[in-house]
Amino acid sequence: MVPVETPYVAVDLDVLDRNVRSMAASATARGLALRPHAKTHKTIEIARRQLEQGAAGLTVATVREAEIFADGGAGDLFIAYPVWPSPERARRLRALAERVALRLGVDSAESADALARAVGPLDVLVEVDSGHHRSGVQPHEAKGLAEAAARAGHRVLGIFTFPGHGYGPGSQPQAALDEARALAGADPGAGVRSGGSTPTAGLAGAGPLTEIRPGVYVFNDAQQVELGTCDFDAVALTVAATVVSRTGNRAIVDAGSKILGADRLAWATGFGRLPDFPEARVAALSEHHATIEFPDAVPARGDLLRVAPNHVCATVNLVDELVVVSGGGQVDQWRVAARGANT
Amino acid sequence: MVPVETPYVAVDLDVLDRNVRSMAASATARGLALRPHAKTHKTIEIARRQLEQGAAGLTVATVREAEIFADGGAGDLFIAYPVWPSPERARRLRALAERVALRLGVDSAESADALARAVGPLDVLVEVDSGHHRSGVQPHEAKGLAEAAARAGHRVLGIFTFPGHGYGPGSQPQAALDEARALAGADPGAGVRSGGSTPTAGLAGAGPLTEIRPGVYVFNDAQQVELGTCDFDAVALTVAATVVSRTGNRAIVDAGSKILGADRLAWATGFGRLPDFPEARVAALSEHHATIEFPDAVPARGDLLRVAPNHVCATVNLVDELVVVSGGGQVDQWRVAARGANT
Repeated sequence: MVPVETPYVAVDLDVLDRNVRSMAASATARGLALRPHAKTHKTIEIARRQLEQGAAGLTVATVREAEIFADGGAGDLFIAYPVWPSPERARRLRALAERVALRLGVDSAESADALARAVGPLDVLVEVDSGHHRSGVQPHEAKGLAEAAARAGHRVLGIFTFPGHGYGPGSQPQAALDEARALAGADPGAGVRSGGSTPTAGLAGAGPLTEIRPGVYVFNDAQQVELGTCDFDAVALTVAATVVSRTGNRAIVDAGSKILGADRLAWATGFGRLPDFPEARVAALSEHHATIEFPDAVPARGDLLRVAPNHVCATVNLVDELVVVSGGGQVDQWRVAARGANT
Repeated sequence: MVPVETPYVAVDLDVLDRNVRSMAASATARGLALRPHAKTHKTIEIARRQLEQGAAGLTVATVREAEIFADGGAGDLFIAYPVWPSPERARRLRALAERVALRLGVDSAESADALARAVGPLDVLVEVDSGHHRSGVQPHEAKGLAEAAARAGHRVLGIFTFPGHGYGPGSQPQAALDEARALAGADPGAGVRSGGSTPTAGLAGAGPLTEIRPGVYVFNDAQQVELGTCDFDAVALTVAATVVSRTGNRAIVDAGSKILGADRLAWATGFGRLPDFPEARVAALSEHHATIEFPDAVPARGDLLRVAPNHVCATVNLVDELVVVSGGGQVDQWRVAARGANT
């Protein structure tokens, strides 16, 4: 392995494996299928670990992600997105449906019709808005849309939602309740009722839900720590950075938004957190600088620091390789196979 | 050329060339050297256009960017960053200094000493803080640092600053004034006084400054439009996106933070702007969804929209290729050679 220079993304294999096993066990204990969202890790080696631990299949966000994970051996893929079929994308969807068990999100009769015309009959799930107000129909509209999709020729496997409004301090219980109500209230009579984000995944109960689709849990991140979803010892991914400058109570490291990502929700305390310095705050972020404030001693120039990004999905998508560490040393290097797979 | 699917990054060649020529002419007219920051475009073809139009050299943020632009034919490179020399990075800096005219930023006697020990004598510029409060010494400390760097064996070519506090509504005149004062006040007697960001580049005058280093101007972006630095007709780069969902006055497109970037300064009206719909606002952003509010008619599912990102440097770093368009059609495809070049 070549010498790795900062900034780089390090994944602690032991923490990762614990996170993968623990979510799998928790889903099984509740009688829920686990279909992890692979947009978080974009990495074949991690998908395999999830499937080996009993995941029912993978969730992805784009057709390109589906193609890459299919190439990597995944046989059951859900594109949880209201894909619009351009002619080229329709061709790709057809090719994909021939080699894996493929399911697709729909959130309008118009897109169900367009998919049927351009691609042919597909297995689909109707997307329901449970309070995040992004895509998806209102729960009372789900039955009508399911009927329209069936009329267009599709097989309607069920419904799904993303309770993204659980990404706020203390909002997880309400978001989980909204999710359960939306799925229970919308059920068009089909089988699958799929929900789940990492903040609400632990609160979901069988009955209203049959399946959860958390993504971030494999790595966790500063947002999950600050939401209270996990502790620092469950954070598997950090960016290794070198102190390049310092002044007063601040150190500047060589990891900026081009590796940490620029995500910052309004309630976040900064642009990331330092597991080894829980009281430190990442006060400012440029493309290649993070300004970190320390309450006590400031690290020296040349020191190596570990920064947990706010939103790990953004970080992974910024690098080609994950440096896999265990027991303090590098043990492997994994390619981010689906980096940039936006189409 | 293969069919391009949304979301993709489109660069209007005519607008790009106009931006490149116009900044070059403006710098020349003021007697200023232009050393554009190549971290914005990370693309050999665009660097060549800047150098052909009279740029004195290129600015980069990392050693890896310098290596890539050197491979692409650039012969004069300024790493405007307080690089800390790990052994491997020192080896790379030595190799680079042997094949191009290389200059490096320093902002402490400690880093000047470390560079001298690990790499050997270099051409350096002392970084001065003109009000952005990130890295750099205070103006009155510049002379002492220049002397320390010279004692360590380096050739001190001058001083530089980044007036990043010009990224606020109405703050450009003050930031440009701060920049001029800091550079004039800090001058350690050497030649180069280098400043300039895109918001302040047009306000910089010869005398206090000898050189400007704007980056964003080649493309411009929603931030520059909202700061008043440029109009929509000077925005050369947009993300092409397809409407995949709609409800009420909102359309959802398939370009999210994984292609637009998540940058959003506090004063921004949203997560990007639509040059063809100046009244529309990008109200929310997920990884693969942008929620766009329209005051009047909402585009239909399947429609293609152009979104100017808030911060174009982030966008370019998220893709492998720029789709080059002119007169409404694709004319070329350029590789983002330095994408992810963080080390």
